[in-house]
Amino acid sequence: MAEPISSTGAGDPTPIDELDGIATLDLERARRRGYPEAVYCEGKTPEQVGAIAARFRSAGAPESGAVLFTRADERHAVAVLDALPDAMHDPVARMLAWPPNPPEPTGELVVVACAGTSDLPVAREADLTAQYLGRHTELVVDIGIAGLHRTLSRLEQLRAAGCVVVVAGMDGALPGLVAGLVQAPVVAVPTSVGYGAAFNGLAPLLTMLNACAPGVGVVNIDNGYGGGHLAAQITAR
Amino acid sequence: MAEPISSTGAGDPTPIDELDGIATLDLERARRRGYPEAVYCEGKTPEQVGAIAARFRSAGAPESGAVLFTRADERHAVAVLDALPDAMHDPVARMLAWPPNPPEPTGELVVVACAGTSDLPVAREADLTAQYLGRHTELVVDIGIAGLHRTLSRLEQLRAAGCVVVVAGMDGALPGLVAGLVQAPVVAVPTSVGYGAAFNGLAPLLTMLNACAPGVGVVNIDNGYGGGHLAAQITAR
Amino acid sequence: MAEPISSTGAGDPTPIDELDGIATLDLERARRRGYPEAVYCEGKTPEQVGAIAARFRSAGAPESGAVLFTRADERHAVAVLDALPDAMHDPVARMLAWPPNPPEPTGELVVVACAGTSDLPVAREADLTAQYLGRHTELVVDIGIAGLHRTLSRLEQLRAAGCVVVVAGMDGALPGLVAGLVQAPVVAVPTSVGYGAAFNGLAPLLTMLNACAPGVGVVNIDNGYGGGHLAAQITAR
Amino acid sequence: MAEPISSTGAGDPTPIDELDGIATLDLERARRRGYPEAVYCEGKTPEQVGAIAARFRSAGAPESGAVLFTRADERHAVAVLDALPDAMHDPVARMLAWPPNPPEPTGELVVVACAGTSDLPVAREADLTAQYLGRHTELVVDIGIAGLHRTLSRLEQLRAAGCVVVVAGMDGALPGLVAGLVQAPVVAVPTSVGYGAAFNGLAPLLTMLNACAPGVGVVNIDNGYGGGHLAAQITAR
Amino acid sequence: MAEPISSTGAGDPTPIDELDGIATLDLERARRRGYPEAVYCEGKTPEQVGAIAARFRSAGAPESGAVLFTRADERHAVAVLDALPDAMHDPVARMLAWPPNPPEPTGELVVVACAGTSDLPVAREADLTAQYLGRHTELVVDIGIAGLHRTLSRLEQLRAAGCVVVVAGMDGALPGLVAGLVQAPVVAVPTSVGYGAAFNGLAPLLTMLNACAPGVGVVNIDNGYGGGHLAAQITAR
Amino acid sequence: MAEPISSTGAGDPTPIDELDGIATLDLERARRRGYPEAVYCEGKTPEQVGAIAARFRSAGAPESGAVLFTRADERHAVAVLDALPDAMHDPVARMLAWPPNPPEPTGELVVVACAGTSDLPVAREADLTAQYLGRHTELVVDIGIAGLHRTLSRLEQLRAAGCVVVVAGMDGALPGLVAGLVQAPVVAVPTSVGYGAAFNGLAPLLTMLNACAPGVGVVNIDNGYGGGHLAAQITAR
Amino acid sequence: MAEPISSTGAGDPTPIDELDGIATLDLERARRRGYPEAVYCEGKTPEQVGAIAARFRSAGAPESGAVLFTRADERHAVAVLDALPDAMHDPVARMLAWPPNPPEPTGELVVVACAGTSDLPVAREADLTAQYLGRHTELVVDIGIAGLHRTLSRLEQLRAAGCVVVVAGMDGALPGLVAGLVQAPVVAVPTSVGYGAAFNGLAPLLTMLNACAPGVGVVNIDNGYGGGHLAAQITAR
Amino acid sequence: MAEPISSTGAGDPTPIDELDGIATLDLERARRRGYPEAVYCEGKTPEQVGAIAARFRSAGAPESGAVLFTRADERHAVAVLDALPDAMHDPVARMLAWPPNPPEPTGELVVVACAGTSDLPVAREADLTAQYLGRHTELVVDIGIAGLHRTLSRLEQLRAAGCVVVVAGMDGALPGLVAGLVQAPVVAVPTSVGYGAAFNGLAPLLTMLNACAPGVGVVNIDNGYGGGHLAAQITAR
Repeated sequence: MAEPISSTGAGDPTPIDELDGIATLDLERARRRGYPEAVYCEGKTPEQVGAIAARFRSAGAPESGAVLFTRADERHAVAVLDALPDAMHDPVARMLAWPPNPPEPTGELVVVACAGTSDLPVAREADLTAQYLGRHTELVVDIGIAGLHRTLSRLEQLRAAGCVVVVAGMDGALPGLVAGLVQAPVVAVPTSVGYGAAFNGLAPLLTMLNACAPGVGVVNIDNGYGGGHLAAQITAR
Repeated sequence: MAEPISSTGAGDPTPIDELDGIATLDLERARRRGYPEAVYCEGKTPEQVGAIAARFRSAGAPESGAVLFTRADERHAVAVLDALPDAMHDPVARMLAWPPNPPEPTGELVVVACAGTSDLPVAREADLTAQYLGRHTELVVDIGIAGLHRTLSRLEQLRAAGCVVVVAGMDGALPGLVAGLVQAPVVAVPTSVGYGAAFNGLAPLLTMLNACAPGVGVVNIDNGYGGGHLAAQITAR
Repeated sequence: MAEPISSTGAGDPTPIDELDGIATLDLERARRRGYPEAVYCEGKTPEQVGAIAARFRSAGAPESGAVLFTRADERHAVAVLDALPDAMHDPVARMLAWPPNPPEPTGELVVVACAGTSDLPVAREADLTAQYLGRHTELVVDIGIAGLHRTLSRLEQLRAAGCVVVVAGMDGALPGLVAGLVQAPVVAVPTSVGYGAAFNGLAPLLTMLNACAPGVGVVNIDNGYGGGHLAAQITAR
Repeated sequence: MAEPISSTGAGDPTPIDELDGIATLDLERARRRGYPEAVYCEGKTPEQVGAIAARFRSAGAPESGAVLFTRADERHAVAVLDALPDAMHDPVARMLAWPPNPPEPTGELVVVACAGTSDLPVAREADLTAQYLGRHTELVVDIGIAGLHRTLSRLEQLRAAGCVVVVAGMDGALPGLVAGLVQAPVVAVPTSVGYGAAFNGLAPLLTMLNACAPGVGVVNIDNGYGGGHLAAQITAR
Repeated sequence: MAEPISSTGAGDPTPIDELDGIATLDLERARRRGYPEAVYCEGKTPEQVGAIAARFRSAGAPESGAVLFTRADERHAVAVLDALPDAMHDPVARMLAWPPNPPEPTGELVVVACAGTSDLPVAREADLTAQYLGRHTELVVDIGIAGLHRTLSRLEQLRAAGCVVVVAGMDGALPGLVAGLVQAPVVAVPTSVGYGAAFNGLAPLLTMLNACAPGVGVVNIDNGYGGGHLAAQITAR
Repeated sequence: MAEPISSTGAGDPTPIDELDGIATLDLERARRRGYPEAVYCEGKTPEQVGAIAARFRSAGAPESGAVLFTRADERHAVAVLDALPDAMHDPVARMLAWPPNPPEPTGELVVVACAGTSDLPVAREADLTAQYLGRHTELVVDIGIAGLHRTLSRLEQLRAAGCVVVVAGMDGALPGLVAGLVQAPVVAVPTSVGYGAAFNGLAPLLTMLNACAPGVGVVNIDNGYGGGHLAAQITAR
Repeated sequence: MAEPISSTGAGDPTPIDELDGIATLDLERARRRGYPEAVYCEGKTPEQVGAIAARFRSAGAPESGAVLFTRADERHAVAVLDALPDAMHDPVARMLAWPPNPPEPTGELVVVACAGTSDLPVAREADLTAQYLGRHTELVVDIGIAGLHRTLSRLEQLRAAGCVVVVAGMDGALPGLVAGLVQAPVVAVPTSVGYGAAFNGLAPLLTMLNACAPGVGVVNIDNGYGGGHLAAQITAR
Repeated sequence: MAEPISSTGAGDPTPIDELDGIATLDLERARRRGYPEAVYCEGKTPEQVGAIAARFRSAGAPESGAVLFTRADERHAVAVLDALPDAMHDPVARMLAWPPNPPEPTGELVVVACAGTSDLPVAREADLTAQYLGRHTELVVDIGIAGLHRTLSRLEQLRAAGCVVVVAGMDGALPGLVAGLVQAPVVAVPTSVGYGAAFNGLAPLLTMLNACAPGVGVVNIDNGYGGGHLAAQITAR
């Protein structure tokens, strides 16, 4: 087998400097946007993720907040923990954070509510993200509209939030219901929970985009990280 | 211009006997299924619809129930009324019925509820269909989940029904909510009310198919006739 | 306003020789494929269609069969009849043929069956196409599966065909039913008849592609011309 | 690796009380809707499902009916049977029920018919659900329309039902055919059986929504539980 | 022609009390959610909209904010102005507001930015909504990414906002670009501007849901009202 | 674990008689349609397929033709061969036939052409099906339009057929090209070969349905069996 | 009716300075990209387009090339010609150009080929765009693959081009065929010509993206401007 | 088990000559198109790929350029290297090339830029393809628009290219951004990187087709080979 090739063209194609390829870290981002960078692990090799983690270690912890590794499978987690042994790892949310402790919370409360138990991993990802971006959070589980009394029994808690993140699959009806009951903005996170005509989250996505009650901002299917990040920005002050 | 052609093939293609083509009326249907036939007007010419109406006139009124003409525009209505001058015509529901009076109601109550005012034509079509198939009906308007108190204020009425027909566009969340609150079966009718990501009724259709609460049977988008018919069958006894 | 421009580039863009652009008639086609050319009128201006018709007039009638103009609206028809005054024009099928008489039929019988009255224009287009390509045809209307007895009452007629063209919208179930009852191949033509989740013919198209009974070949939605053409080829001998 | 984090925000994110998160059981549901709760296992861990089963055991059997565990894979089943050793387990339907015996049947007969052998798991799920909700049921297999005589030979049985549940994949034509032949409502369950343009059940779903015969209520793809539940409600009295 | 029928069933179907049907106004909403109700005019008849407007007139102006009439065509506008002659009417945004003057602004600045001139109606709707819900707003037009310098020249203005509403059709890339440059949350409004593979707004909708930069909440296609409402909630304090 | 339950309802749900459930074999089909039945193995358990094979063995070979087992994986094949040890098994086509020898060919020649090597399994399935239904066949591989000379070099062979089955994935352009070059009908079989915007065969399916040349009948994606069956019917005489 | 409102918020919403809103012209673009700006007229009012045209008139003609107005309907054209009376207007391509004469051609030849006469407007738009960006062009009409000889008769002309723009609707097979026959890059422009399963251009779009022959770059459906622009860039030197 | 069958029809179906079936190599292609053939390995068995490789070995290296094997998994690679032991193998790009050294570069520079690290395999495939077709290339990684400064810092490099290949998943916004900043044509390659509403690359594909800046030609999702090939053609001189 021939060696990897160099880009000089003639007889020797370019070798990829993997370190160089993955080192375009956005260190200005915390300064520019107020929140440190997150590393999306899916589609990266464990080696690439590990190299990035090592680079963060040598750069030192960010001034505020934490570096997040999202959608990390077990092999990604091992690679991160090898470089950053004290990192927090939450397998349910498939997330790691370093340094391991979230910052002292500021801003308004974020309540993360999910419709069913199966939505928990995504809800957990949203919850942790908001915490590591500096918010106080509360997580409410299994209050879908099939049992309306469960939703209504949480009304006071939902109304105390500066932003409610609502995570739901299947019919995705919960965010619109909540938006009609609270003053705060609702961040809606559709999930791929369900089967058949749920079409991997398309159904709840469309439901949320068409919510009859105004005040709902939607993020990508299963994007707990994005939901938590947006909620943290909304409640920043 | 040449004459229409006959099917003998050689030099003279088949003329279409329009009367013959549209006369395959399903007169056995009332006997077979217990409900008389309905004429779907969309895609038929007013002349064709008028000829069918005339055929019903000469056949005489069905033993029970009424002949329905559905999705009839103004020109269809004129053609029907020309043949059956005493027919009932409801322009909102785009429906005609002959004979004009619904039969004496039997069976259980059908409650038709719609989420918003824009859903009214479809809800009205469901309501009239169930009436003309022999049910007592009640029509409830504008109880969508954006204002949950409106839904809950109707709970007693909804629980009195042997079947609830719920008509909704946009997020289509109402049928699932109602199904979680009543014992009776819910017939869900998605509508094309909405815009953008409602995709002409696809969004509420998917929502209803994925309703978290069991007990929801879904019919085609804007199919008030189908919803009312199914409800009448469910409540037949 | 400046004049249309010539393609020489400098200061004078190419004028389009409309005659040249539309004159690439496929005169070899009858020789090559055994069937003369058809002119698809939709998307062409009446002037373009009229110019094509005039070209056929000056070229003389084809040795066998006829030139067909399909999906012709009223303005197209006027343009064709201006050039070919003796052409056959069927407004229901939106089709013209020249010379006006179909050839003496050869081959096996083609039966065209449609599920409902609203499918008639497409069925008629299939029927005429097969006739003008030299087949004996029979047209059967309104035998959809909602009234199964209507389908079964035509069984003998359907079984006499060398090919059955089945035209249906909405649920599109008729072709599969027929295919399970006859030996001959079935050509299935989905139509855009229906509404809502029929999605302009997508639903019957999918139904026909998934027909449980083998022996069904599907053509494009509303493509009566294609269905009739394929049937004529199948029954050529 | 750091410990799971607490929601107090500062240095210690919220641990998830898994027991709390999954314990929002809807014990009011039997009272409110007349049917006990079902546990949708897909997307839950075996541990979560086992904990729910244990909770039911300590709460005691419901007054009437049975608790159902749906879409349970082998690992879910082991977890349920560990907590409820006498539960009924049907691997074909992927369902468990506790207590193991269905209640004495009341109401009208439910007939569950499936088009092909491959639809059997979904049909079985519908059949068992209706039984455990208190209905007498009959299951008819492999009567798809490719062999119409098979359907027709079952006509008497189908007409004896208070509700017919029809389960079909591929072209999904059977429910519309049956609806045209019986007086009772038809509950249509599309399945993901098929390939290619069946698009994982989309094709039969659309077919059923566009059924030419009225009287068809559709549930989600592969949703045998929902079909059986709706049928049980329809035939309750 | 027979009279409209009453729901008593026997010979006299229910007449619809149009006033009753449209009078379920959500007067509690301002108290419950802090923002008065809006009337979605599309799909309602001018008569219905006019009756609603008259009802608001007799109820008197809301304590704070204004009643909004959205997606109002010319006939809707005439009906509203007939009942509320001093209402503000903006034909570009297809919106009316009553009372005509927005409240004294509170909260943070909302900047509404649109990618192209064709997006202006939707951007204008968002801008007016936020104003009438009590925010100070600025509207920035035609800064799409095809000319990046136009976007960057507005950076200071964008960074001054408490929330940026970004309105874009075609590729819908602008919200993600802006989100990467500012700290504040971005509300993304896809529009149906474009053609072909823009699929009436589907393309920019998907782009926005997949924005690489976190901090983007998406609303329905062309939903300027929803975008402005969400922005007003986010910047409420 | 409880025993499977009987349908008597009270305490003992119906056991499924698997033999009964799978024994509704369509023995009339050969008489009715002229072609023996085929067993679609996908979605059936090996046990079910084996039981069906045993039933065929005890019923004896059909008078003409052969029983086909389609889409059979290795486990299905083992089950069939256990019951019918002399059956023909082609793993490429995933097909078995019994008795193992195709009948003496009658009718016209069927030519099966595939665009690329990856389409071979589907083409092989079509080829074998037509053979076992009694046709003489020829199989042509790898003549896709990227190298037009390859297609043209086979023109004489293609023109000798009474029906050409064209199998293609990716752009699916080959059937339309062939149809424009031959007199015989073309049966088009789209395949799931390709990636990305081929969308598992959707792209070639649409291409074939929109083929500019008439004379193309389309079957389901990857449905080599259906393509071969239709071709055999077309060339029956 | 109240006056348009000002953005100062209190009682006086922002009037839109239409001139300001549409004046963000990209005058740097010719310098930056080498090609002057084009004005997309669809979705703009004639007044807006007229104001832009007047702005260009006062700014003077660009140093090289011409300003293009694309997708201009008759009312747009009147508005442009009112401001720039000597502009070239091509109603077929719905395009205007100013100054009216294309620049002296440089670079390589661009050949624009379209499959059918109905594709001519889009092909003409591509042809004119390339001319006004400084290329010598040739336009070839009606060479679709249904008549392969027509394509092959143009082979020499196609091979002379530095870039071939291929415009096709329906099955969209022509670009892939051409790409397999020439060395130059092919720019493929799908059109919305066709019906049914062409899905407004989706079918040819997918075909072109899946072209078996490499060397095809695809632009948006009906985007003749984009196709001509890309071809002009490719052949710049 | 019976032997594979021969196509003579009677009792002995055609054995497939696998060698013959895969040997239709397009040896004229380098002469005709100027670039040697590539072997698409996906969907082929390792045995088939190995046989093709052996055929190339016996035919000798092409006059110019190299034979490429694309989308080759590990088993394909082993089969190729077994026949061509000195071939270059790049596992990241899943590509092999023989002879192993790219030709001496000619033409203009190709710059391949990818938005994120996860896009690297596709970008690498594009880069290698262009090199082996004779271009000098440069590969730029991780310059997505979430961090705009990263894009802008590469502006000089991007502007030096004769063609820029831009590879991006998720929102796919990078190609449009780059096209607005450079004179050269942009070849856009969408990738399946992302999740949820990215729909396996559909979202970036649509974004690129709707890019506001002209000058973007799009290839299939994940089609690095096609992108590199098109870029090599564009920069050939």
